[in-house]
Amino acid sequence: MSNRVVLAYSGGLDTSVAIPYLAKMTGGEVIAVSLDLGQGGEDMESVRQRALDCGAVESIVIDAKDEFANDYCLPTIKANGMYMKQYPLVSAISRPLIVKHLIKAAQEHGGTHVSHGCTGKGNDQVRFEVGFRALDPSLEIIAPARDYAWTRDKAIAFAEEINLPIEQSKKSPFSIDQNVWGRAVETGFLEDLWNPPTKDLYAYTEDPALGNAPDELIISFEGGKPVAIDGRPVTVLEAIEELNRRGGAQGVGRLDMVEDRLVGIKSREIYEAPGAMILIAAHEAMEDVTVERELGRYKRLIDARWSEEVYDGLWFGPLKRSLDAFIESTQEHVTGDIRIVLHAGRIVVNGRRSNHSLYDFNLATYDTGDTFDQTAAKGFVQLHGLSTQIANKRDREAQ
Amino acid sequence: MSNRVVLAYSGGLDTSVAIPYLAKMTGGEVIAVSLDLGQGGEDMESVRQRALDCGAVESIVIDAKDEFANDYCLPTIKANGMYMKQYPLVSAISRPLIVKHLIKAAQEHGGTHVSHGCTGKGNDQVRFEVGFRALDPSLEIIAPARDYAWTRDKAIAFAEEINLPIEQSKKSPFSIDQNVWGRAVETGFLEDLWNPPTKDLYAYTEDPALGNAPDELIISFEGGKPVAIDGRPVTVLEAIEELNRRGGAQGVGRLDMVEDRLVGIKSREIYEAPGAMILIAAHEAMEDVTVERELGRYKRLIDARWSEEVYDGLWFGPLKRSLDAFIESTQEHVTGDIRIVLHAGRIVVNGRRSNHSLYDFNLATYDTGDTFDQTAAKGFVQLHGLSTQIANKRDREAQ
Amino acid sequence: MSNRVVLAYSGGLDTSVAIPYLAKMTGGEVIAVSLDLGQGGEDMESVRQRALDCGAVESIVIDAKDEFANDYCLPTIKANGMYMKQYPLVSAISRPLIVKHLIKAAQEHGGTHVSHGCTGKGNDQVRFEVGFRALDPSLEIIAPARDYAWTRDKAIAFAEEINLPIEQSKKSPFSIDQNVWGRAVETGFLEDLWNPPTKDLYAYTEDPALGNAPDELIISFEGGKPVAIDGRPVTVLEAIEELNRRGGAQGVGRLDMVEDRLVGIKSREIYEAPGAMILIAAHEAMEDVTVERELGRYKRLIDARWSEEVYDGLWFGPLKRSLDAFIESTQEHVTGDIRIVLHAGRIVVNGRRSNHSLYDFNLATYDTGDTFDQTAAKGFVQLHGLSTQIANKRDREAQ
Amino acid sequence: MSNRVVLAYSGGLDTSVAIPYLAKMTGGEVIAVSLDLGQGGEDMESVRQRALDCGAVESIVIDAKDEFANDYCLPTIKANGMYMKQYPLVSAISRPLIVKHLIKAAQEHGGTHVSHGCTGKGNDQVRFEVGFRALDPSLEIIAPARDYAWTRDKAIAFAEEINLPIEQSKKSPFSIDQNVWGRAVETGFLEDLWNPPTKDLYAYTEDPALGNAPDELIISFEGGKPVAIDGRPVTVLEAIEELNRRGGAQGVGRLDMVEDRLVGIKSREIYEAPGAMILIAAHEAMEDVTVERELGRYKRLIDARWSEEVYDGLWFGPLKRSLDAFIESTQEHVTGDIRIVLHAGRIVVNGRRSNHSLYDFNLATYDTGDTFDQTAAKGFVQLHGLSTQIANKRDREAQ
Repeated sequence: MSNRVVLAYSGGLDTSVAIPYLAKMTGGEVIAVSLDLGQGGEDMESVRQRALDCGAVESIVIDAKDEFANDYCLPTIKANGMYMKQYPLVSAISRPLIVKHLIKAAQEHGGTHVSHGCTGKGNDQVRFEVGFRALDPSLEIIAPARDYAWTRDKAIAFAEEINLPIEQSKKSPFSIDQNVWGRAVETGFLEDLWNPPTKDLYAYTEDPALGNAPDELIISFEGGKPVAIDGRPVTVLEAIEELNRRGGAQGVGRLDMVEDRLVGIKSREIYEAPGAMILIAAHEAMEDVTVERELGRYKRLIDARWSEEVYDGLWFGPLKRSLDAFIESTQEHVTGDIRIVLHAGRIVVNGRRSNHSLYDFNLATYDTGDTFDQTAAKGFVQLHGLSTQIANKRDREAQ
Repeated sequence: MSNRVVLAYSGGLDTSVAIPYLAKMTGGEVIAVSLDLGQGGEDMESVRQRALDCGAVESIVIDAKDEFANDYCLPTIKANGMYMKQYPLVSAISRPLIVKHLIKAAQEHGGTHVSHGCTGKGNDQVRFEVGFRALDPSLEIIAPARDYAWTRDKAIAFAEEINLPIEQSKKSPFSIDQNVWGRAVETGFLEDLWNPPTKDLYAYTEDPALGNAPDELIISFEGGKPVAIDGRPVTVLEAIEELNRRGGAQGVGRLDMVEDRLVGIKSREIYEAPGAMILIAAHEAMEDVTVERELGRYKRLIDARWSEEVYDGLWFGPLKRSLDAFIESTQEHVTGDIRIVLHAGRIVVNGRRSNHSLYDFNLATYDTGDTFDQTAAKGFVQLHGLSTQIANKRDREAQ
Repeated sequence: MSNRVVLAYSGGLDTSVAIPYLAKMTGGEVIAVSLDLGQGGEDMESVRQRALDCGAVESIVIDAKDEFANDYCLPTIKANGMYMKQYPLVSAISRPLIVKHLIKAAQEHGGTHVSHGCTGKGNDQVRFEVGFRALDPSLEIIAPARDYAWTRDKAIAFAEEINLPIEQSKKSPFSIDQNVWGRAVETGFLEDLWNPPTKDLYAYTEDPALGNAPDELIISFEGGKPVAIDGRPVTVLEAIEELNRRGGAQGVGRLDMVEDRLVGIKSREIYEAPGAMILIAAHEAMEDVTVERELGRYKRLIDARWSEEVYDGLWFGPLKRSLDAFIESTQEHVTGDIRIVLHAGRIVVNGRRSNHSLYDFNLATYDTGDTFDQTAAKGFVQLHGLSTQIANKRDREAQ
Repeated sequence: MSNRVVLAYSGGLDTSVAIPYLAKMTGGEVIAVSLDLGQGGEDMESVRQRALDCGAVESIVIDAKDEFANDYCLPTIKANGMYMKQYPLVSAISRPLIVKHLIKAAQEHGGTHVSHGCTGKGNDQVRFEVGFRALDPSLEIIAPARDYAWTRDKAIAFAEEINLPIEQSKKSPFSIDQNVWGRAVETGFLEDLWNPPTKDLYAYTEDPALGNAPDELIISFEGGKPVAIDGRPVTVLEAIEELNRRGGAQGVGRLDMVEDRLVGIKSREIYEAPGAMILIAAHEAMEDVTVERELGRYKRLIDARWSEEVYDGLWFGPLKRSLDAFIESTQEHVTGDIRIVLHAGRIVVNGRRSNHSLYDFNLATYDTGDTFDQTAAKGFVQLHGLSTQIANKRDREAQ
C-alpha cells in the first residue's frame, strides 16, 4: 500500500509547504483536510484550492461550525470550562474535532499517515496525537515541525527550491489560532512577562475604553443550553456569533495570562473570547439559581477537572466521558433567563428568573411571608459545630 | 454566680435595645463589646457611650483593624478566598475575630453568657455560635432575634416602654454589614431576583461608568503577602484601604449574586469589596507565575474548600487549620510584582515579574535561545495518551 | 382530616408500644409498615399480626428483598460503597427504601404523619427524616424516642398500663440492625473502646479461627453487576445470600470500628457483612482490570463521596444522583470473572479474566512478544518531570 | 572533564555487568553506590567488593536503613500510603532515597553521569530520573537497559567476552525488589492474570493457613509515629522489622493486584509487606479515634493523592511537599495505643485507647451518663436536609 498522508491543513505557509515536503519525506501522496470552525479570514474555497496547487491529491473542506458549536462549545458551556479559572479552552476543544475529521478522511481515502503542523513544545501536538491514537492507532503520525525540526525558514527555503506557488508574506510577529469560540495570540515581545499587551494584538474585541453605550441582553437557557437571546431563538452557533459581536463591541472577553502547559513549562498567552465568556458567565449565574448547594459545590470541582482533562488533550479519554455524564445529569433544570449588561469590558449579571428556580422567596425574605422555621436553627448550629467543639476541647486539654 | 451577658454590640438600634432586654431576660448584667474592623461610619467612642447609656455595665471598644487585616484578610488572600468563586467572605471572616474578643472579654469579666443579634436564617449565627462553643463551651449562648423571635418592631416598642435614650430612626430599607474587607447589602426589592440593583445600594464604589481615567498600579508580594504598592511599603491594612479607595473610584469590586447559605436556602446578595478583589486577582496572577502546575491545580481545590469551610462557620475547625498548613506551604515563593490597571469596573493584570518565577524564557520562547528539547515530546505524548489509546481500542472491540 | 400516623414498624417492643402511644399522642390512628429486607428472624406474618394486636388500624408487610438488592445494594457494589473505607453502609442504604414505602403507604392510606423509632443521637433519624421531607414534605414527622424522650423503660411501663398483649422480654444487651446486606451491633461494654468484641456479638459469621477448609469461588460480573457464581446465574439477592452463607462459614466480613456519625460524635460499631465485603472486593478487582487509570483514580474519589452522601442521609439528594450518573458511566465494561478464595476470615482475589480487559499481555510482558516501545519512555520521563525540575531549580536559587 | 558515571548498584548480574559496559560506552569511570535498605540477602561488603572486581573505581556502601525508616517509611505511615488503596509503595519510596545518595556521591566524587538499571516500561525509571533532574539537572542520565536495549542475554555475553569475574547463575524466573518496607515480585506465569500465585513466590511471609496461634500486640503512637510495641520503645526501623517478623509468621501482608503503571499500562504484581500493612492499619485506627470527622474525610483524599504523587515518581515535586504539610498538621494528636490480633493472614484491630481521643463516652453512650442533647437533633435534621427537600420539590413541580 502506498503512503497517503492526511494533513490538518490551515491554508497558511507552514502547512502549505508541508504538502510537498510530506510527499517527499514519505514518498507518497498528501490529502489536505481543512475545517471551517468560524475562524473567519479567507474563504474556505481558496484554502481548498491552495492545497491542490501545492500538490495535494485531495483537498477536503468541511463546514464544521455547527458541529463545533453543538458538540464542543456547548459541553464547555455546561462545564463552565475554564482552565486555571480563566481560559475557555479555545484551541483545546477544536483539536479533537479536527482529529475526528482527519481520521474519517483517512479511513475513507486510504490514508496511512496523519500529520499536523504543531511544534514539540505546545499543547496541540498532544491533543492531535492522543486523539489520533485513540480513534485509529493503525495510522502513523508525522509532525514535521517537531520530528524533522521543520521551521518557517526551512519552509520558505523549500518553497523557493521547488517553486511553490504561494506568496511568502513577511513573517507576522503573531502566532494566532482562532475559531468561533475565541482567539489565541502569542508573540515575541510578550515573552517578557512584564510587557503589557498592545492594541494591535486584538481582532475580536474593541478597546473596552471606547465608551460605547451599555448593551443589555437576556440569554435564555434550557437544560444548560443557550436557546434564545432577547427572546429570539438561536442555535448555539448563532448565540456565540451574536455574543462575539455584541461582546466584542464592548471590549468584553480579553485575557492576559501565564498558563501551565502540559509539557511542563509556563507560557504567556493572550486570548479574546467574548461569546465564550459571556455564555459561561450567564450559565454559571443560571446554575447558581437552579442547582442545589452540595451539587453546586461538587460540580465546581468536576468542572475544573473537566477543563484540565480537555486542556491536557484527553478529550477522548474515559475520565472525560464520565465527567460528561456527571455534568449532563446536573443540567436538567438549568433553565431560565439571565439578564446581562455588557459595558466597557465588563460582563454584569443583574437579573435571573426561572420556573426551575431553587430560590424560594418565602424562605429567603425577611419581610411578610417568611416561612423559614427559625427554631430549627438553634439545634442545627449546635450539631453542625459539635465535632469542632469536641476537637477544640481536646486540643486545649491535650496540651 | 450572677449572670453576665457579653454581647457583640454594633451600636445600632437592635443591639442597643438588646442590652436592657438581655438584662431583663437573664436577670443579670450586660457587657457590650464592639470591634473597629474598619467599618467606618460613627466614631467608636460614641458607640461605646451608647452601650453605657442603654444600661451596659461595661462597654469595651477594640481597635482590631490590623489584627483583622493580618490574621483574617491575609489568609483569605493566600487562599484566594472566594465562596462560589465570587464572594470574598466579607462577613464570614469577621465573625471569628469578634468571637475571639467576646470570649476574651467573657473570661476577663466573669461572663456567663455570650450573645449576638443574628437571626435564625442566616450564616452569621452559625459563625458566632460554632466559634463560641469551640473556644469556650461553658458559656451559654443567647440569640434574642432567633430564640425570642425578637424583631425590630418589638425592639422599638420595648425601647419606648423603658424610655431608652436612643433615636428611633426610620427603618432603613437596607440590611448592611461592612468592614475594611468589604460591604454586604440585602434589601427587600432585591428578593425578586429579576430586579437589578439600584445605585443607592453602593457606598464603597463609584459608578463604573463614570469615566475616570485608568489607574495603573504595581502590587508587590513577599511570600504571598502584599508588602508594597507602587513601591511604597504598606501593611496589609494599608494595602486594603488604599485599594478600596483607588478601586472604589473606578467602580471595581461590585458583586450581585445568588448565594447558597449554610442553612439550606438561596439568597440574593450585593457586595462591594474593591480592595479584596484587587488583592486576590493580583495574588492569583502572582501564583500563576510562581507556583508549579500540579501544585497550582491542587491548590485551587484546597482554596475552594477553605472558602467553604470559612463560609460555613468552621474557622476554628480542625480541617481549616490543616488547609491553612497546605496553603502556607505553597506561599514561600509567591514573591514579585504584579502590574494592574483599574478602569471602569475592570481589574486587568498586564504585567508580572519575579525573582522566584517558574517561567523560563528560554524554555518558552519560539525565538533564538530556545532550550526546550522538542525530541522529548514525541515519546511524552505517546505514553501520556497510552491508557486512553488502550481504552478506546477496548471500547471498539468490546462492542 | 383525622390524624393517621404511618409508622416504620419492626415488630420489636419499642415500635409495638409506639402504636398505642402514637395513637394517644395524636388522637388518631396508626398504620404499621414493615419491610422484609432479608433480616431473617421472625416470620413477617407474625410481625404483621402483632401490629394489629397493638392497635394498628392497618398493618402492611412488604417483601422488599429483591428491590433492596437491585436498587440499593447493587449501586453500593458499583460505588464500592465503604464509609471511612470500611463500613459497607448496612443501615444507611436500607432507610431510604423504608422511607419510600412509608411515603407510598401514607399517600395510599390518607396518612398525615410519618414516624420512626430512632433516637436523636444516631444517623438513622437523619436518613428517615431527610427522606420523608424529600419525598413528601406535607407529612408531619413524629420521632417519639427523640421528641418525647420516649425510652424503653417508659415503653414497658406504658405497655403494662394499657395491658398491651406483648411479652416484655428481658432487655437484650445488644442494639441490633440487620438486613441481607449486613448486621450492625452496638452494646454497652463496647462503649469502652479498649474492650475487644466477644463471640456472642456475631450472628452472620462463624469464628474465623474455626479451621474450615478454604472455599474457592468465581464471581462473574456484567456491567458491574454480579450475574453468576461458579457459573450458575444468580440475581443480586441470590448472590448476596449465597456469599453471606459461604463467607459467613469462613468468618469473613467482620468489622470493629470507631465511626464518625453525622451528628458530630464518634461511636464504636461492630458489623458483619460477608456478602457485601466479598462482592465489593471482587468488584474492585474487576474494575482494576477494566477501568482506565485516570478514571479509576477519580472514581475512587467519587466512590468515597458517594459513601459519605449515603451515610449522611442524602440518598435523595441531587448530588447523590449525579454521582450515580458518573458511576454508572464507568461500569459499561466492568465485565468478567474474579476468582476468590475465602478462608479463615480472609477474602483473597487470585485470578481475573475478562473480554473487556485493559490489561495487554504484549505491553506488559518482559518475555517474547513485548510490543511496548521503550524508546518513548525517555522523553516521557523528561517532560513528566519538567515542572518539578524547574521548581527545584528555582527553590535552590531563590534561597 | 573526564566522564564519571555514578551507578545505582544492586550487586546483581545486570548492574555488575553494567560497570564495564558503562565505562566502555562513556569512555570514563564508574562509581558504584549501594544502599542497605534492609533488603537482606548478601552482606553489603560482598556487594561493595564485587563492584570493584567488576572495574568500578569507587564502590560506596551506605547503611540507610534508619534514614529510610524515618524519612520515607514514616511519612508513608502518616499518609496511610496505599496506591490504588492496596499497594504500600514498597519500591516507590526507596527510589528517591537512592537518588539522594547517588546525587551526593556524584557531587562529592566529580560525577558527570548518573545511571540506573531500570527498563523503559516500569515506574522506577521515572522515579530515578525525575529525582536526578530535580536534585541536579547538570548530571547526564544513562539508562542502559532502556537506552541501549541492554538485556540480560547481552549482559551475559558481554560478561563472558570480557571475562568478568561473576557467576552466571541460571536466570531466576522472578524479578524481585525488596527492602525493609516490603517485597515486590513479578514473574512470567503471573502475566496470565488468571493464574494464581504459587507458594515459592513468597519470602517475607509464611503460608497464612499454617495454623499458628494468634499473636496479640499493642502498638503505641505519638504524633502519628509508632514509638512502642507491647510497651517496649522502638525506633521506626525496629517497629517495621519486628512487625515483619511477627506478621510474616502469621501470613499477614500478602497482596496480588493488577496495577496501573504511570507509563500507561496495567501489570500484575505480587507484594509482601507485613510490617507496612500492620503499621498502616494501626495508624488508620488511631486516626479514627483522634482525628475529627471533616478532617478525616478530607485527609483520606489527601492520602490518596499523596500516594499517587509518590507512585508517579514525584517525591521531590512541590505538590508532594504541600501534601506533607497538610498531613503533618493532622498528626499532632494521633497518639495512643492500638491493640491488634494477627492471625492466619488477618490484621484485626480490637481495641484503642488515647488521652487525645475525640471519642466521648458520655456523648456516645445510651446508658447512664448520656450528655448528648437530643433536642438539638430535630432542627439539625431539618436544616441539614432543607436544600435536598427544596430540590426534590422543584423536581416534582418542574416535570
